[in-house]
This record gives sequence, C-alpha cells and structure tokens, in this order.
Amino acid sequence: MGKSEIKTMIENLQQLDTEKMYLNDFFHTWKESDDELAATFTVADILRKMREENISSKVFDSGLGISLFRDNSTRTRFSYASACNLLGLEVQDLDEGKSQVAHGETVRETANMISFMADVIGIRDDMYIGKGHTYMKEVADAVQEGYEDGVLEQRPTLVNLQCDIDHPTQSMADLLHVIHELGGIENLKGKKVAMTWAYSPSYGKPLSVPQGIIGLFTRFGMDVVLAHPEGYNVMPEMEEIAQANAQKSGGSFTRVESMAEAFQDADIVYPKSWAPFSVMEERTELVGAGKFDELKDLEKRCLDQNANFKDWECTEEMMAKTKDGKALYMHCLPADITDVSCEKGEVAASVFDRYRIPLYKEASYKPYIIAAMIFLSKFNDPAAKLQELLEADTNRIL
Amino acid sequence: MGKSEIKTMIENLQQLDTEKMYLNDFFHTWKESDDELAATFTVADILRKMREENISSKVFDSGLGISLFRDNSTRTRFSYASACNLLGLEVQDLDEGKSQVAHGETVRETANMISFMADVIGIRDDMYIGKGHTYMKEVADAVQEGYEDGVLEQRPTLVNLQCDIDHPTQSMADLLHVIHELGGIENLKGKKVAMTWAYSPSYGKPLSVPQGIIGLFTRFGMDVVLAHPEGYNVMPEMEEIAQANAQKSGGSFTRVESMAEAFQDADIVYPKSWAPFSVMEERTELVGAGKFDELKDLEKRCLDQNANFKDWECTEEMMAKTKDGKALYMHCLPADITDVSCEKGEVAASVFDRYRIPLYKEASYKPYIIAAMIFLSKFNDPAAKLQELLEADTNRIL
Amino acid sequence: MGKSEIKTMIENLQQLDTEKMYLNDFFHTWKESDDELAATFTVADILRKMREENISSKVFDSGLGISLFRDNSTRTRFSYASACNLLGLEVQDLDEGKSQVAHGETVRETANMISFMADVIGIRDDMYIGKGHTYMKEVADAVQEGYEDGVLEQRPTLVNLQCDIDHPTQSMADLLHVIHELGGIENLKGKKVAMTWAYSPSYGKPLSVPQGIIGLFTRFGMDVVLAHPEGYNVMPEMEEIAQANAQKSGGSFTRVESMAEAFQDADIVYPKSWAPFSVMEERTELVGAGKFDELKDLEKRCLDQNANFKDWECTEEMMAKTKDGKALYMHCLPADITDVSCEKGEVAASVFDRYRIPLYKEASYKPYIIAAMIFLSKFNDPAAKLQELLEADTNRIL
Repeated sequence: MGKSEIKTMIENLQQLDTEKMYLNDFFHTWKESDDELAATFTVADILRKMREENISSKVFDSGLGISLFRDNSTRTRFSYASACNLLGLEVQDLDEGKSQVAHGETVRETANMISFMADVIGIRDDMYIGKGHTYMKEVADAVQEGYEDGVLEQRPTLVNLQCDIDHPTQSMADLLHVIHELGGIENLKGKKVAMTWAYSPSYGKPLSVPQGIIGLFTRFGMDVVLAHPEGYNVMPEMEEIAQANAQKSGGSFTRVESMAEAFQDADIVYPKSWAPFSVMEERTELVGAGKFDELKDLEKRCLDQNANFKDWECTEEMMAKTKDGKALYMHCLPADITDVSCEKGEVAASVFDRYRIPLYKEASYKPYIIAAMIFLSKFNDPAAKLQELLEADTNRIL
Repeated sequence: MGKSEIKTMIENLQQLDTEKMYLNDFFHTWKESDDELAATFTVADILRKMREENISSKVFDSGLGISLFRDNSTRTRFSYASACNLLGLEVQDLDEGKSQVAHGETVRETANMISFMADVIGIRDDMYIGKGHTYMKEVADAVQEGYEDGVLEQRPTLVNLQCDIDHPTQSMADLLHVIHELGGIENLKGKKVAMTWAYSPSYGKPLSVPQGIIGLFTRFGMDVVLAHPEGYNVMPEMEEIAQANAQKSGGSFTRVESMAEAFQDADIVYPKSWAPFSVMEERTELVGAGKFDELKDLEKRCLDQNANFKDWECTEEMMAKTKDGKALYMHCLPADITDVSCEKGEVAASVFDRYRIPLYKEASYKPYIIAAMIFLSKFNDPAAKLQELLEADTNRIL
Repeated sequence: MGKSEIKTMIENLQQLDTEKMYLNDFFHTWKESDDELAATFTVADILRKMREENISSKVFDSGLGISLFRDNSTRTRFSYASACNLLGLEVQDLDEGKSQVAHGETVRETANMISFMADVIGIRDDMYIGKGHTYMKEVADAVQEGYEDGVLEQRPTLVNLQCDIDHPTQSMADLLHVIHELGGIENLKGKKVAMTWAYSPSYGKPLSVPQGIIGLFTRFGMDVVLAHPEGYNVMPEMEEIAQANAQKSGGSFTRVESMAEAFQDADIVYPKSWAPFSVMEERTELVGAGKFDELKDLEKRCLDQNANFKDWECTEEMMAKTKDGKALYMHCLPADITDVSCEKGEVAASVFDRYRIPLYKEASYKPYIIAAMIFLSKFNDPAAKLQELLEADTNRIL
C-alpha cells in the first residue's frame, strides 16, 4: 500500500524538471520554477512516507551538514538536524557568537574552512534588514569560488533557514500543510488567504514570514490579501513580486486596511506579528553602529506603537467572518496567545486551542521540506535515487 | 566463547515478560515489574558483551535521541550520548537555558516540535522538588497526545535521566555493578546495604540518588538501612515504597541514627551527601518566586547546618565496622574526598583510593543501562532482535 | 584511474613500519619515526582520494570521538569533527569551561568517565606553558590505567590537537601541502624554509606553531631558518630538537636576526606572530595564581613590546627577496592582514591575496591528517584495512 503510493509519487517527480536544483542553493521561493517547487513538495512527501513505512532514506554514508544560526532557534534547528540525520549527514554547528556580524574577508575564509567535508550549509540570519540574504550569498559565492579554485573537492549547497527577505522552509512547509488540508495542489486555485499583522507585546519579529507567504502563496492562483496597520509595511519589492506572481498564476494580491476585511470569507488566515520594515532598518543601523542605548529607545517606541493596535487579534469574532466561520488558522509558532503566553496577543486562546492539531501538523512538514531541498540539490536524477532507496528497502529501525 | 555467552543471555531474556516496556517510558524503578528490571539488566549485559566482541548493536539507521538537561551534567550526558550512539541514534540537545522552568502550554508545544523525528527523549530535571517528574510526565503526555492526534508518526519514548524523585539510570547501573561484584542476582538476598548521608561542603545535592537506591535495592531481599542526621529526611513516600518493597521481597528496610550503626556488618555502603527534603522544598519555592537573595541566605543556612555533621564521613574507622572490614564502597561520583577535593568531605582519601577501580566500573554500567532502557522500549520482541544482531555479526570496528 | 592511484599508495603504505602507532597516541612529531610520518601522509592522501572518488572510508559502525577544547577553535574543531565523521565516529564535546584547569584526581576520573564508549580523544590545550602536554599525558595515562584495570574494555587513543609544545595536526597538514606543492616528499631536500616571527596587534599567540614547524620540517633535509626579534625565543629544547633533526636528515637549522635575512632565497616562508616564551611562562603563573590585574598589565607590556617590531611584516619587498621572488607563503590562518583585519599586521594584503588559494589548500589537509592519525592508531594492518575499503567500494553519497 504505502510502497505503491511512494511509487506513484516517484513517477510524478519524474515528470518535473529539477535539473537546475542540482548542486544549487535554495534562497528564495520566487527564484524557483513551478516544477522546482512541485518537486520539493513531492520529495518531501516521499521522504515522509518512506519514514512512515520504516524505509531508510539515508543517502550519505558520511558527511556534514553545517548549521549557522545567527538568531536563537529551536524549531528550525531541530528541523534542520532532523533533515540532515534522515539523509545521513551529521550536524556541526558553527557558533559565531550571536552579535558578531562578520564581513567580506572573514566570510570567504570561514566559508571555505568549514566546508572541506561539508555537503550542506544551513543558515539562519533574519534579524538585520539588508544583511541576511547578502551574507548567505557571500557564503555561497565563497564556496563556489573555493570549488572552482580546487580548494573544495565538492561544493556544499546552501539552504536558507530564514533570511531578512524570505523564510522558504517555513512558507514551503506551510503550503505543503495547506495542500494536504485541501486535498491536493490543484485545489489551491481561487482560495482566499489572509496574511495579516497581529498585535504582540514583543518587538522586532522578522518580516520574512509574511514576505515568504505572500511571495509563495501567490504562485498558485490564490487570492492573497495582506493587511497591517499603517506603518507596518513589508519590503516594497516583496509586494511587487507578489503582484507579479498573482498576475501570472491567475490569482490576486491585494492590500487592505484591517484584519476584518482580510478575514472576510477567507479560506485561510495567517495572523502574525512583525516589526515595520522601517523599524528593522533603523535597528540594523543602530546595531551596526553599536548604539545600544538608542536600541533600547527604539524598542520602547516600537512597543508603544504596537500597543495602538491591540485590536489586531485573531478572536472568535474575527474567525466568524471567514468562509463558513472555519478558515484554516495558520501560524509559524510560537504564537503569542492572549491570557496564555501574554495578557494580550496575536490570537485568542479558544481559537488557538481549536487549531492546535493542524498547527502542530503544519510544523511537522518543515524537516521534510528541508530534507527535500537538500536531496534535490544533491542528485541530478532524484527520482532514480528515490527509486533505488525504495528497492533497497533498508529498515530505518531494524 | 563470547558469542555462546550472549546466546545464553538472550535465552534468559526470552523468559521475561517485557511486553509493557514496548513503546513505554522509564520513569521510576518501582513502576517496573521484577521481570522488567531483570530484562533491563540482561539487555545491558548483552549489549556490553556484544560491544566487547566487536559486534554492532546498531538498530537505528537514522533517528534522533533528544536530550534535555535542566542541570549540569557530564557523566549522565556522556552516558546518554554513548547509549544513543551505540544503537544508531544521533543526540540532539534541547538547550532551554538552565533556570527557565517551562510550563503547560509551552511544554506541550515544545515536546511536539522536537519530536517529529525523535525516537527517544532523555530528560534530567532533578533540582526542584515536585517539578522534575511532573515535567517529564507532561512531556510524555504531550507526545502521546501528539501521536494519537496524528501529529507524530511515532511516539518517542522517555528515559528519566534523573528527576526529583528517582535516578533510575544511576540506581540500575549501581545495582548491576553489585550483581557483577556478588556474582549474580541470586546472591543479593540477605546482604546488608547502608545508604547513609555524608558530610559535604556543598549544598543542594538532589535526593534522587538515596531515594533511588532505597527504592530499588529493597526489591531484591536485601537488608537496606538508611541513616542520616536529624532533618535530612528523604521524601516520606519513598520510605513507604522502600518498606513495601522490602516486605514483598523478604528483605528489610530500617532507618538508623548514625553512620556507624548503618555500617555495622554491612556488605555494601553508599555514603553520600544530600540536602534535606524541606530545604529542597524551600529552595524550589524561592526559585519559583525569583527570590534570589533569600536563596543565598538558604544556602548559607544549609551549609551551616551541614557543618554540624562533619563527622558523617566514610573513614577507615567506619569501613572497619563493615563485614570483615571490606564492604563494597559505592558512590555515584564525583565524591567530595577529604584533603583531595575539599578540606573535609564525604570520604577519606585512602578509602576512596582503595575503591577507585570498582567505583569506575560502577559508573561504566550506566551507558549500557540507558541503552537497554531504550532498546526495550523500541522492540516488542527484544530477544529476537538481539538474536538478529548476533547473527548479522556486523563489526563495530571494521 | 583514481582507484589504481589509491592502490599504488596502499602498496607504498605496506612498506612502512606502523606497528608502534597501533593503539598509541599522537603527541609530538619528533616522537614518531620517519616511517610513521610517511605513513600518516600516505593514509591522509589515500583517505582524501577515496573521498574524491566517492568511496566510503567509514570504519566505525558506531563509536565516539571525544573533543576537549580548552581554547576557542573553529578550524581545528571542524577538522576534527570532519575526520571523526569520515571514519564513522560521532563527536561528543566535553565542555569544561574555558578557564577551569583541572588537575590530578579530577583528570583521572573524568578521563575514565568519558571513555566508556570513546574510540578517540582529541585535545587542544595550548595556552599555558608547561600545562598542555602535561594534561594530555595525564589523560593518556588515566585511560591506559583504566584499560589495564578492566574499567575500559578498550583504550581510546589521543590526538594532540595543539598543546603548549607542538601542533602536529597543523605542522603535518602544512608539510603535506608543501609535499604536494613541490611534487613529492623527495623534493624537500635542500629547500630553504623561513619560519619567522611577524608583527601582530594581538597578544599571547601560542608558540606551538613555530615550534611544530621547526621540529618537523628539519626532518626532511630542508634548510630551516628561524628568525624573530630579541626576546621572542621559542622553547630552548625545541631548538635542540630542530638542531638534532637537521643533523640527522642532512639539512640545517639556523637562527638569524631579521626577517630579511631569513627570507633571502627562501623556497618557503612562514611569517607568523607568537608570544615570547618568557611572557607565556609569566602568563601561566599569573593565571594559575588568579592575578587578573597583573595579567592585564602583562598584556599591555607585551603589546607595547610587539609594537617595537612593526617592520616584521611580510611585505612585497620581503617576498621579492625570496627564491625568484616566488617562495611559497604559508600561514596556519587566520592571519592578521595589514589594512584588512588590522591597521598593521603579519602580512600585506597583496601578498595574502596572491596566496589565498594555496593557503586554503594548506588548511584543507588538516581533516585528512587527523583522520590518518586516528586510522593508524586503530588498525595494526592499515594497508589491509584500506584495501578492504577500496574493494568494498561503498559509495559515500549513494
């Protein structure tokens, strides 16, 4: 049963063009073709099914998966470790110290020094606008150069575990969850998605989640609505990308002024706090200049500003406005839950509670999405390789 | 030779009922049946022998062993890592920060988030009375629920690496050491064991070691004597459990007032410092309330109180009182050794020195005990699985 | 092609006597015979070639490689992790805390406690003169004793990842780089090597790199010249060792007064900062006595002293003095690069830039050198074992 299902998925994978993913990095979903996204979902589903069927998907006999987290992380760290382990890679953390932002010369050298036996490098660098993605590109360029110069016998591929612009492992896991909830990728078309800001008593949450969502969900013919209070804009380029995606996919991308408007008849809601782009820019400058007193002041101002929008909460009343009152509630977790994790937060406890199981399932796709990204960057004929694993049928647990 | 010995042990294992251990957690030794304890010892011995014979006991092709240490640890950490590695699991640490005590909502969510690819979760949480075990139960319930809700494709099993009540990996390793020293589990009956408090210049050592020892050693017909200065009582429930165990096993459990009385004609002595239950309770409250000044005061009072009992030291004079003057001296290590690690401590240097080799051997059983606990929670026919490994006869070192 | 090349190297290895390396530690290159050094280079080259040919060199099915870094490290840490992973060992860090210097009793106990399932222990302890090597010996003696006493079923072998005297994984990687650059070990004879001090605005760099270089390079008939400002002497014993080596190998070892003199007609230059031996001695005493104010004072004095020798920089003018102006520039990295990482440093940016690729290649040998050291300590017939791996021809990446 399980095996024939896997076989079908492998056949689907065979139809997709994944050639350019081979030996390549995964930075932003909008840089990937429709086939490449579909392949990522398909490989994730195959790897998951194989694990459920106790079939080993270990493709590395040895090798390192380097992780570089420039921000605290439990979920993404565990997802990355799980993905690497599933494929046979051992995680090795590069701990640079949280605040140290390395540049140029050092990045090039360090990237090579850690890569002599690295197959993959996963990086999370999401806190500084204009920095995270730039840093990842520097690392990617450095190992490419190292490979071309004969320093590295192979080029490790990069997985963006969250940058200042996109959070592709999150948005892809989110969408795979939606695909499963809706019963197939073909059912996404025409669905209304509300990506909205929500109030939180914490400050400086990155923009990469809302940006990643509008950048990805617009690819599938969905009607994506972005809502936030004045001043909480995302990066303008990201709205342009979402707009262009929507046009191409036959969906739409609109910005509205209130959570209520966004929620109206929505099939999916994603209410989540983030800091305004301008605040993140100011924050980046202050950190760069070492102005920590002014940082404290910025934080205070930002929290005061947030406090004007405490009514941006995903309450039962809000949920009632959605399609049949039962939109799929999504969140990247952890959520700020009113009366649970804080006095007033992003979501009412009763709403969160009702969606706990789907929320946990949503999160469960991330390790497989990461594993799929790694897998597709390592094999030029991924379908054949998965077929090989299926036939070998080695038990994961003896 | 080695192999036929392993074969015999596997045959012994076949006679034991381990069904309830399958997919289950190991919290307290007194929750396990006699068969289950015997099976744990037997599997530990088998795994050790297999390693000595260079036979691989890798049963996981991939998979994670999560570790969560809410207290510093070197020995237990290395034992857990060794056990996981022996079976093929990769350790992934969840570092919550030492002082942060998470509750309810967060525990449930975190437990699921780290478990998507976890086969085992090992937890050490021993510092706060009434908290450690409760926390482990919360985690166990959360992953059970996650499994039932379809969030987790499998339920990771838990190993208690020390809670506020029991320290089963320690007491089981200790007892396996005794079994080997005495030449078999059948030789335990009638032996006198002195579990006594000893002076230490440090404060707040957990009660789980003495509690674990009286809770386990009373299971085997031994005469277990507990001795401590007034006010250093262990949890009353634990004395009741020890009492009931002794009655059932044909042994005895007594409390006496002095180390000398406890040591008289003892076959085994386990002199070790611990904090009074009431102090640990007060400590837990003060930590919970964030009253760090009062904590310092409590520490001072506790150390002053300890200082009244500096004569509770395992000296040569004390050892001379034991059976033929040669009781087996035990300790979970590290010990506070007079004139070595401190001015005045739990044990005289000459006593410790004479028992160094057995002490190190005692410690050497812990990785195998942990591996046995994991093994028994993962296979419903552990004997068959071990037989399979024996027949495969894969070299651990090529 | 690749395989026949490997076969030839294995045949060469067969000619070398490596018997004493089996179950033994690697502390200092001058304790190893010529055959043993040659075998280390050969195994490193074989393991590298095997990886390039996608042939697995996993010889451990399970097992731990303990790492103990008493000083910060990225390069050596990643090299050790890579080496362990390549052979099938999982790294487990023993984090003692950077400043804590354990002694005697504790070392013996800890060494045993972490070694129940350890195959290798890698230690870096380079900051305190008279301490690092002594500590490693204590650990080695403790596990030897533990093995003889029956505490450990096998004795883990030690790899010196940098002590106060030698840095063998660095010097061996450096020399393997030279061997490849010069086209074979037979081409080393008669080449002039300039190991010279260079100015750096940082303080307290260990002496083990220059000491390791003069202790190793003098083994191969090279003309090794050591140059440094007055007062920056290395350990006198090391000069004696270098002298004796040179005499035996038909090379020479000389000390000169200036970088210019050392560079004159040199084939290889290794300009690098280090602290004077006497300063390191004073530093060790002050740290031992906990005199942190005086330490600050020592640092200031040392930096002031360094500043007198800012002209000890590897500039283009200096490089022009070398053989045909194109000596091989070497460094263990990271280098202090003038106008890049500091205002005035060890090397001019243009020189460093021109040699970036060879410098990165130099570093790339370290994981393989460490893996070779481990390999040779674990198999008494390493050639046969490598032949076995070659014939098995298991893919590293499926």
